[in-house]
Amino acid sequence: MISVVILGAGNVATHLFKAFNKADSVSVIQWYNRNLESIKQFKHHVDITDDLSHLKHADVYIIAVSDDAIKALSRLLPFENKLVVHTSGSVNINDLDKKHKRGVLYPLQTFSKHADLDFSNVPICIETLDKKSYPLLKQLSKSISNITKKVNSDQRRVLHLAAVYVNNFTNQLYRIGHEITESKGAEFDLLKPLIMETAKKVQDISPYRAQTGPAKRHDKKTINKHLKLLENEHHKDVYKLLTKSIQLTHGRKKL
Amino acid sequence: MISVVILGAGNVATHLFKAFNKADSVSVIQWYNRNLESIKQFKHHVDITDDLSHLKHADVYIIAVSDDAIKALSRLLPFENKLVVHTSGSVNINDLDKKHKRGVLYPLQTFSKHADLDFSNVPICIETLDKKSYPLLKQLSKSISNITKKVNSDQRRVLHLAAVYVNNFTNQLYRIGHEITESKGAEFDLLKPLIMETAKKVQDISPYRAQTGPAKRHDKKTINKHLKLLENEHHKDVYKLLTKSIQLTHGRKKL
Repeated sequence: MISVVILGAGNVATHLFKAFNKADSVSVIQWYNRNLESIKQFKHHVDITDDLSHLKHADVYIIAVSDDAIKALSRLLPFENKLVVHTSGSVNINDLDKKHKRGVLYPLQTFSKHADLDFSNVPICIETLDKKSYPLLKQLSKSISNITKKVNSDQRRVLHLAAVYVNNFTNQLYRIGHEITESKGAEFDLLKPLIMETAKKVQDISPYRAQTGPAKRHDKKTINKHLKLLENEHHKDVYKLLTKSIQLTHGRKKL
Repeated sequence: MISVVILGAGNVATHLFKAFNKADSVSVIQWYNRNLESIKQFKHHVDITDDLSHLKHADVYIIAVSDDAIKALSRLLPFENKLVVHTSGSVNINDLDKKHKRGVLYPLQTFSKHADLDFSNVPICIETLDKKSYPLLKQLSKSISNITKKVNSDQRRVLHLAAVYVNNFTNQLYRIGHEITESKGAEFDLLKPLIMETAKKVQDISPYRAQTGPAKRHDKKTINKHLKLLENEHHKDVYKLLTKSIQLTHGRKKL
């Protein structure tokens, strides 16, 4: 049985708590947050505290706080030589105080406060500074996910950066699709199956092979029709840049 | 039983043939293409022809050819006063020759040659010029899909435009994600569950509410880290424009 203390109360902390709580081989023995209010609803399921000097002995301490707070919190921990990991995509493993055995457990997924998430399909990227800690972190990750992967800090920050494109930026394209349809009395809902299918396609074939549409076909006539139809200058800028992007990828380079 | 003749041999024509062929209430009695080679593999399942003067009498003629060829083909049809529909998102219903009863049956989905598709979840946008033809086209659409919707030509071209954002442009963001990860020895595969979850989220909540990440948080530190990490100038341009886009949508307007 691996004993775990969770520190922090954001979306990642909460989803990790729920996932570990279901795992047979893990026991979350304590949950720390500097503000008890956010975690008091869990007090019947786990020991909660807002006092670092009351932290219990555990096999792994998971710091799931905002990026900027990781370094300072790792310093404040009143013990040393224990395995302390953070969960951030963009923070270097060396930002953790060197008095600890240091590691990273980065779940590569988007977490909403309310939506429940099946953690078994969330890739967990793990890294440890000392080799001896690796098997423990691996075992801990496997208790909640089927996809665990050794990923170093350089690869991790690149994944985090790429995630901004495929998640935040993609979602913003959905938003623009919403704006365009609503402004003309068409239904955004009709686009939802297409959104799903577009995501599904690249599960099996590369985005390069999955591409279709006027930009790839260099179909000037349709492209110009679309630009004429767009009333919002910013929507036009996005249309032009991403059309150019597709054409940089697929052959001829001019818009 | 609705009798149908399909004209054209592209992805849409082929997927429609397969879907109608499975429907109990529809009979595809003939398939025309100017080049028999592309459809001869189906000759044991349907009468095929490359001669417009041999077209059979049917309740509905479905023109599923490239946008530029629709107008001319509709003129060449050697009959009049029959229901003739095209399947394009961006071509006006009036482009069909006025000797016909005119309509549109636009399946709003991305079609690959090879991947099989469950048509029951493909929204079919339908339009007819005369009211009397509408019920027939509705019945025909319902035979293959659970989502059929009356959509006029203005709404349809707006949907087609929005589809470019949520499909082609989104797929290009996946492609950039692929380029970024591969160039640094990280695995694109680790992003696939995130891609699915991002698409799933907006099935239930609006893209506005679904947004997360550094751009929405106006987290300058992470944004600057990312821009520094990007080596490809074009990737940088996309990063900047979509960050700006998210910030236009969510509050403060400067990058």
